Amino acid sequence: MGKRVTIKDIAEECHVSITTVSRILNNKKGYCTAETEQKVLDAVKKANYHPNPAARSLVTKKTNLIGVILPDIYNYFFQELFQGAEDFLREKGYSLVLCNTDGDAKREREFLNSLSQGVVDGIIVSTSNREDDNSTILELAQNKFPIITVERYGEELKDIPRILVANREAESMAVHSLYERGHRRIAFICGPVKADNAKRRLEGYRLGLEEVGIPYDEALVCRGDYKLDSGYRATKELLESQEFTALIAANDLMAVGAVRAIQDAGKSVPDDISVIGYDGTLLAELSKPVLGTVILHGYDMGKLSAENLFKIIKGKKIADKKVVFKPELKLGESIRTIQKEK
Amino acid sequence: MGKRVTIKDIAEECHVSITTVSRILNNKKGYCTAETEQKVLDAVKKANYHPNPAARSLVTKKTNLIGVILPDIYNYFFQELFQGAEDFLREKGYSLVLCNTDGDAKREREFLNSLSQGVVDGIIVSTSNREDDNSTILELAQNKFPIITVERYGEELKDIPRILVANREAESMAVHSLYERGHRRIAFICGPVKADNAKRRLEGYRLGLEEVGIPYDEALVCRGDYKLDSGYRATKELLESQEFTALIAANDLMAVGAVRAIQDAGKSVPDDISVIGYDGTLLAELSKPVLGTVILHGYDMGKLSAENLFKIIKGKKIADKKVVFKPELKLGESIRTIQKEK
Repeated sequence: MGKRVTIKDIAEECHVSITTVSRILNNKKGYCTAETEQKVLDAVKKANYHPNPAARSLVTKKTNLIGVILPDIYNYFFQELFQGAEDFLREKGYSLVLCNTDGDAKREREFLNSLSQGVVDGIIVSTSNREDDNSTILELAQNKFPIITVERYGEELKDIPRILVANREAESMAVHSLYERGHRRIAFICGPVKADNAKRRLEGYRLGLEEVGIPYDEALVCRGDYKLDSGYRATKELLESQEFTALIAANDLMAVGAVRAIQDAGKSVPDDISVIGYDGTLLAELSKPVLGTVILHGYDMGKLSAENLFKIIKGKKIADKKVVFKPELKLGESIRTIQKEK
Repeated sequence: MGKRVTIKDIAEECHVSITTVSRILNNKKGYCTAETEQKVLDAVKKANYHPNPAARSLVTKKTNLIGVILPDIYNYFFQELFQGAEDFLREKGYSLVLCNTDGDAKREREFLNSLSQGVVDGIIVSTSNREDDNSTILELAQNKFPIITVERYGEELKDIPRILVANREAESMAVHSLYERGHRRIAFICGPVKADNAKRRLEGYRLGLEEVGIPYDEALVCRGDYKLDSGYRATKELLESQEFTALIAANDLMAVGAVRAIQDAGKSVPDDISVIGYDGTLLAELSKPVLGTVILHGYDMGKLSAENLFKIIKGKKIADKKVVFKPELKLGESIRTIQKEK
């Protein structure tokens, strides 16, 4: 492989410093003679050199790239979140790069470190982590690096701008809704142990049961990992050992897996079992039957994250450092009324 | 906002050049005294400075990031492609950043330019472009920047490593398969004008018709844009004016839209109309009925792109500069036999 021309090569050829080349490329006038400027511009042209954004950023400190770090880019919810952020920031002249951590704290740290060092001007990070993985984010924020967190928990993050979802209220609302339609045996497929919001959604399910007066039965709860297959497997397991008329899955992907498992067992959704998902994505709409789900407003969450990040980059104040989105229940076709509560 | 510490600040504080700081941070010994080295390391520690990867790359020219530029990150095909590339490159110690062009040539150019300038070590670019948008890619390749193209056409790209799909053969195969099952009125929903592979898929449909002896009827062809809604709209339009027993959509997303439109018109897939998609994604598998589709092997295409890019980065030879993937037809549940061809 041939060698790429760098700003250093240009500087050496013209007998000037890297800083001088950088200033000329960034149109900062008055630091050198017009003659030197012309010499550098000629060398740049001759070498077909494109300024390296980070070398450029030694002076301007800008690349106009924004990093978005997500735990699962194949999940519709995060796609909608990204779309909301991209639509806003593109308008402002930024390009977004998307990074997939697969829910792995080590990979998240790697992305945070490599992106924050001159590659991007700011980061939106939304990973369903455990509370003990916040140290890199804290460090970046303390170094005044523009960063926004979404669906990320931990008391130590209280001074960092963040966007959250009322997970407990949402799942409790799903339980209430099924209870009002006559359901008493309601199964639950929860998310992975390592996801903090999975814990909160499970707490919401328990809270809902408590509020309507149904005793919590551990045998009706099965663990998934937010992926489709796990919803299928968990539901198959539940169907083999338990009787229930309704099932709540802690995200839409697992709910789609659940519907498939119920159908493969020769039963009908919603005639035999009602199903409610969580996220409110396109996937819920595309399902047959159309999936009842908790709508999280992923697009709006992404858009607000982007707006707030933009404010931080521009040195402006953010009105609310902590914004909690209130989910809504969308009924779809997958929920059946057994008997109306009087 | 506070000011971020840069390599330049460190250099100024220690009265050494940026290059010296960079060499010390990259463990290149022998360019300065041990005393200077210690002074710089102390300043770095005190300032809590993290080396900027591009400043670092003034010496090492590496960031261990790879850019993947795609036209539609919400399309399962490109997601599978990305997953294949990521699985391979992560093993090799790289992190991938994903960029969405939305099929826009200008945004693609922006990404190519900004990523190639010190942000990433190599690029995989797969956009369904028109042949006239290849100049930036050519320029990068001529500058020895590691780059691989996927599903990208143009005679001028012949010396650049690329991975393609036999689009014409694939759609012709879909027509043959329907013809053998007794279908004679076969509608087609094609991709957007600006996508070169859309043109090739339409040509494949025409080729297939010609081979089995069905005259081409323009009224049976409707244009979409590779998105779900467009498949829905195009099918609705066709249903209102035409009689047909089968429909081919130039990708799975539009095929899912087509199935929905047929069902909404009170007809059944496949009893009234058979549907074949294109891509062979998870979406086809999740559909009800399971969608018959042309499998493109997106994951393998992504993996091979990554393997070849890795070879280029390491200065190794690539066995075949041009690899054409042969698609397969997967029948699913959305295709009905009217009458077997004798």
